[in-house]
Amino acid sequence: MNLDRAKFGLILLCLEVLIVLLFTIFVGYDLQADGSHEKHHVNPSQGGLRPQANTIVKYDSMYQDVHVMIFVGFGFLMTFLKRYGYSAVGLTMLLSAVAIQWGILCRGIFHHDDHGMINIEITSLINADFAAGAVLISLGGILGVSSPFQLTVMVLIEVFLYSLNEYIGAEIFKAIDVGGSMFIHAFGAYFGLALSRMMKPTKDINSTNEAATKTSDLFAMIGTIFLWIYWPSFNGALASGDDQHRAVINTLLSLSASLLMTFVWSGILSHENKLDMVHIQNATLAGGVAVGAPFLKSKLGLHDTCGVHNLHGMPGVIGGIAGTIMAAMANEQVYGNSLYQQYPARAPVQNSSEFSEIVNEFADVEPGEGRTAASQAIYQLATLGVTLAIAIVGGSLTGLILRAPVFDNVPLDQHFDDVYFWECPEDEEKTKLMEANKNKGLDNRTFDFELGADSDTKNVASQAL
Amino acid sequence: MNLDRAKFGLILLCLEVLIVLLFTIFVGYDLQADGSHEKHHVNPSQGGLRPQANTIVKYDSMYQDVHVMIFVGFGFLMTFLKRYGYSAVGLTMLLSAVAIQWGILCRGIFHHDDHGMINIEITSLINADFAAGAVLISLGGILGVSSPFQLTVMVLIEVFLYSLNEYIGAEIFKAIDVGGSMFIHAFGAYFGLALSRMMKPTKDINSTNEAATKTSDLFAMIGTIFLWIYWPSFNGALASGDDQHRAVINTLLSLSASLLMTFVWSGILSHENKLDMVHIQNATLAGGVAVGAPFLKSKLGLHDTCGVHNLHGMPGVIGGIAGTIMAAMANEQVYGNSLYQQYPARAPVQNSSEFSEIVNEFADVEPGEGRTAASQAIYQLATLGVTLAIAIVGGSLTGLILRAPVFDNVPLDQHFDDVYFWECPEDEEKTKLMEANKNKGLDNRTFDFELGADSDTKNVASQAL
Amino acid sequence: MNLDRAKFGLILLCLEVLIVLLFTIFVGYDLQADGSHEKHHVNPSQGGLRPQANTIVKYDSMYQDVHVMIFVGFGFLMTFLKRYGYSAVGLTMLLSAVAIQWGILCRGIFHHDDHGMINIEITSLINADFAAGAVLISLGGILGVSSPFQLTVMVLIEVFLYSLNEYIGAEIFKAIDVGGSMFIHAFGAYFGLALSRMMKPTKDINSTNEAATKTSDLFAMIGTIFLWIYWPSFNGALASGDDQHRAVINTLLSLSASLLMTFVWSGILSHENKLDMVHIQNATLAGGVAVGAPFLKSKLGLHDTCGVHNLHGMPGVIGGIAGTIMAAMANEQVYGNSLYQQYPARAPVQNSSEFSEIVNEFADVEPGEGRTAASQAIYQLATLGVTLAIAIVGGSLTGLILRAPVFDNVPLDQHFDDVYFWECPEDEEKTKLMEANKNKGLDNRTFDFELGADSDTKNVASQAL
Repeated sequence: MNLDRAKFGLILLCLEVLIVLLFTIFVGYDLQADGSHEKHHVNPSQGGLRPQANTIVKYDSMYQDVHVMIFVGFGFLMTFLKRYGYSAVGLTMLLSAVAIQWGILCRGIFHHDDHGMINIEITSLINADFAAGAVLISLGGILGVSSPFQLTVMVLIEVFLYSLNEYIGAEIFKAIDVGGSMFIHAFGAYFGLALSRMMKPTKDINSTNEAATKTSDLFAMIGTIFLWIYWPSFNGALASGDDQHRAVINTLLSLSASLLMTFVWSGILSHENKLDMVHIQNATLAGGVAVGAPFLKSKLGLHDTCGVHNLHGMPGVIGGIAGTIMAAMANEQVYGNSLYQQYPARAPVQNSSEFSEIVNEFADVEPGEGRTAASQAIYQLATLGVTLAIAIVGGSLTGLILRAPVFDNVPLDQHFDDVYFWECPEDEEKTKLMEANKNKGLDNRTFDFELGADSDTKNVASQAL
Repeated sequence: MNLDRAKFGLILLCLEVLIVLLFTIFVGYDLQADGSHEKHHVNPSQGGLRPQANTIVKYDSMYQDVHVMIFVGFGFLMTFLKRYGYSAVGLTMLLSAVAIQWGILCRGIFHHDDHGMINIEITSLINADFAAGAVLISLGGILGVSSPFQLTVMVLIEVFLYSLNEYIGAEIFKAIDVGGSMFIHAFGAYFGLALSRMMKPTKDINSTNEAATKTSDLFAMIGTIFLWIYWPSFNGALASGDDQHRAVINTLLSLSASLLMTFVWSGILSHENKLDMVHIQNATLAGGVAVGAPFLKSKLGLHDTCGVHNLHGMPGVIGGIAGTIMAAMANEQVYGNSLYQQYPARAPVQNSSEFSEIVNEFADVEPGEGRTAASQAIYQLATLGVTLAIAIVGGSLTGLILRAPVFDNVPLDQHFDDVYFWECPEDEEKTKLMEANKNKGLDNRTFDFELGADSDTKNVASQAL
Repeated sequence: MNLDRAKFGLILLCLEVLIVLLFTIFVGYDLQADGSHEKHHVNPSQGGLRPQANTIVKYDSMYQDVHVMIFVGFGFLMTFLKRYGYSAVGLTMLLSAVAIQWGILCRGIFHHDDHGMINIEITSLINADFAAGAVLISLGGILGVSSPFQLTVMVLIEVFLYSLNEYIGAEIFKAIDVGGSMFIHAFGAYFGLALSRMMKPTKDINSTNEAATKTSDLFAMIGTIFLWIYWPSFNGALASGDDQHRAVINTLLSLSASLLMTFVWSGILSHENKLDMVHIQNATLAGGVAVGAPFLKSKLGLHDTCGVHNLHGMPGVIGGIAGTIMAAMANEQVYGNSLYQQYPARAPVQNSSEFSEIVNEFADVEPGEGRTAASQAIYQLATLGVTLAIAIVGGSLTGLILRAPVFDNVPLDQHFDDVYFWECPEDEEKTKLMEANKNKGLDNRTFDFELGADSDTKNVASQAL
């Protein structure tokens, strides 16, 4: 019996018990999902709800698309390491399951009804998936070098800070962040990178396991492509009407242009001008320039397994700055009544003459704070600053905490290797064979259990030795 | 020419001719899909149908989700065996295609119009996918040990009994079975296990092929994760309004908790306290305790390739019992008018004073049978009993029938091996090499064509010999 | 630095700059996506648009399904070659990204507003995916023997001709082509086959790389199954009401019957009567008879890597002929008002007494050309003829053009091999080992880096040598 492993199992058990307890006390159904609510007890003609008008109809399709991105997209994107496939999909599932449940609770700290109850409905699940997205981006920075226990603790801290940051940015600063450039991508990336820097400040990680095979790369392409396909739903899931329509169109066109540019750079800049699958996996998604990762490692001593700085960090910051510029330029001529749907704080204050004018012209406008374009832009920029501050400080502190031995550091020789935490099919066979060899006086040379590994290399290797 | 194979091809041909014939005679479009229906001939203002109000709009998105579960989910879930990947996805496709067509006909025996015609629309396709789901659960119990002919006969019998059982439970007993705990999961599992027991009553199956490689396990994770993702759609596909909303939320939360608990048990109970990918593949989906499978095999002489007893059987029975308890406790205070949508038999009988009262309070209530909570609960329990009886008796009899040599038993040495029925890329090469070796006086040692197999093990093995 | 590769990178860069320029000048949002349009500035009660009535709601779910087919479906379907997996998914992504952007522009030549502007919305994206579908079908004919530069030029020419042909068929001839039998499948297949014939008129391609492994075949099954699952959405995406409902039902039933028949023919006709995974991959999708491909190669000197003649060409022509027959038989008794939705040209001309009669009987009928069933059938047949003519002549000319050395022919020994254009993980290792061997006086025998390759064959092979 391995006590560390059993300990982690028991702690997960306690966590799930705690979650169930908190759900029982604080979580209920929202009106839309609550059959006992009086709105479901009266005739539609008297203000009751009609089943076919339920919000589940509007959101479910895009919710399931986002759900595919989180589990298939991120999960398989990270299977590119040749000996870490079990961990990539397994950790994605474990950490997302924690993040979804914990995320509903943390978001509820900032969004609850007058009785302190968290009323959940389908958009709660979309927001919980978004929190899981931020966590998986952070995971990308330290994939292969952290234990499940360390990562679970990371999720608990990060999801709380994620919810806090989103509350400050979206509710207090009333900043707009379509697609989560700041709240999800920049936050997740810099939290993970700061954590990575703190956890391994001096050690140079340079493992032969940190490489791909063709089979592992093809599994990773399953993730890449599903992320690529459903990105329009990710960016449009919580929008409506023409805003949602534009989010889908713009995302698709940006992704298509990014993908083409990736082939441009990968073909021009890479070794022998051949295409590099790692560039395709990363840059097609980000539109970022796929040349920063080696720089980070060599110059800053910063480890970044999946290149999240390029895939999420830089594009997230660029998205945040672009959002600031857009906010500074947005006006009624271009956006029509969408202006006040996109930037609700720009609507005039209640009872003002400006507000009366706008209500006359447009339908469905809520009173706001009467912000100018400039002041909205400043709030957008402040949100980016707060996001980076919380991510970097929070990630660094979390990294410091996770260095404590109680959280089970992964030994250096088991980095990027499933054997640290998984029963691997080949391992049992391997053990038997090594013993058989020992009995026969043979030595046990390279045992390398890679994904779909091609063994000719190794055959020749043994000839060569 | 292999006569057995040609025979099976001819029988499939006859089956398809029969199916087309029966469709021609008995199947037509439902109003919603039938452009020639008078409702499409009149103005909407005079009761005609508007195109945008067609039911395809409501159901299509979740239908396609369920469809992914059947073909990608079940298909790839069963690719975990290292030499049986072609069969896993190929048999899933073949048996599902038979089950879908045959299922529409069998369901039509019990659901047809006054002229004996089966009117199909989009929910017919969802129900046909559910029938395919039950079949694939049964397949999981005998995967690798049955011939395609045996399995096709199994589908024809099982889908008829499935339709009969669902008719008894849902129509006669008016039991409620959201997500198909009883009709799909328990029925499919115990039909398959009873059949497995009858087909192999004495032989101890213990093949070295009944194992996974890392590559085959990762393919299986594609199936696992798609099943996990779309389960909310599976459980909510045929519901509406707040019922559908709750089905989605509850399924997602149950799955997330299950997933976490799987890591708890897998980490605490398994060998060296390492995580076991088989547990993740099964228990994340079921929420069941993943320790029963070896017990079944050793104690009852029962073979269960995919662990369907734990993944579908036990959870299905638990779901049925939970449904009984829920029915006993359901009342108008908690469910509002949903009560009579969920349990239509609990609505008062027509023309009663109770019925008038309820129609006054709620909209859209149909007259029912005036059942009490207790009598509804008894019917729920009776449905579980009937389901288990039909599944176990039907499965056993089917197993007896399939022992007849005419249905092509798979030889013991070809269990869990694609070579029994598939042309495998490596086989031709293998044959050539074996002959080349023979000509040179070399013996032909281990030929083991596994999925993405790692050959170092075998290199060392040959050194060790 | 490889100048050819760098050249291709620069040309892609110029292409993307050109595309962005053309988009800036000619492309705008359609009313549905344009927040600045006056319809979004007025109250719904005065004719303004309500957000919840936006067309994105109707189309998005099926659009995302089609998107999965293009990228996951076609991409992974073509991974069956053992050493060409990177190229299969990489080229699918590159060519689709070009086709989507270029397709919006080419379609805009024939569909623009009075100011020459292309107004895009969600159905523009669906149509762009359809154009990408035609391109990927053509790619299937020459997969493995063409360079990315040649293929990019092919996309630019083909997508223009595709748009022209669709304009002639759908707009001028007013032919109906549900599911794109003619416009997508027949056009894409015969364009690709004509191009294949012209590019390689004399050479006999016979590479050992043109084969599958079990791992590569399983990756291909991911593509196959996603294509199979979402085909109902592909055929129904642009339809409405009962037409869409029938498209979904009919596609599902046809696919199920096709799948069964594939097992029939594969089992009866193939070697040793075993099932052939290639048949399953192709014929399950087409319902075509999967025995023509070797015939094409041996008799006509025509190379067809993925069997697109059987999978798309023949079924497309059959679909076109069936569409002609259906048009000849269509009448008001069977279709009701759907008749004039399906065949708008059959509606009587404006101001005629027949038109007044029909408007009285049905709602929502637009005036047409008063075509008879026979004349509609003739237009359908003419559309098939024009499609084949443009495809074959256009494909041949494109093939002639692509023979110019400037477009980078793939050397014969790098056919069907990722090494031509990709950095492969094993290659670097290989180079190192070959040098190590040379230093030790060993020769470098078979290096064969296949996907998930099984090496026992090769071990025995080296014993046998």
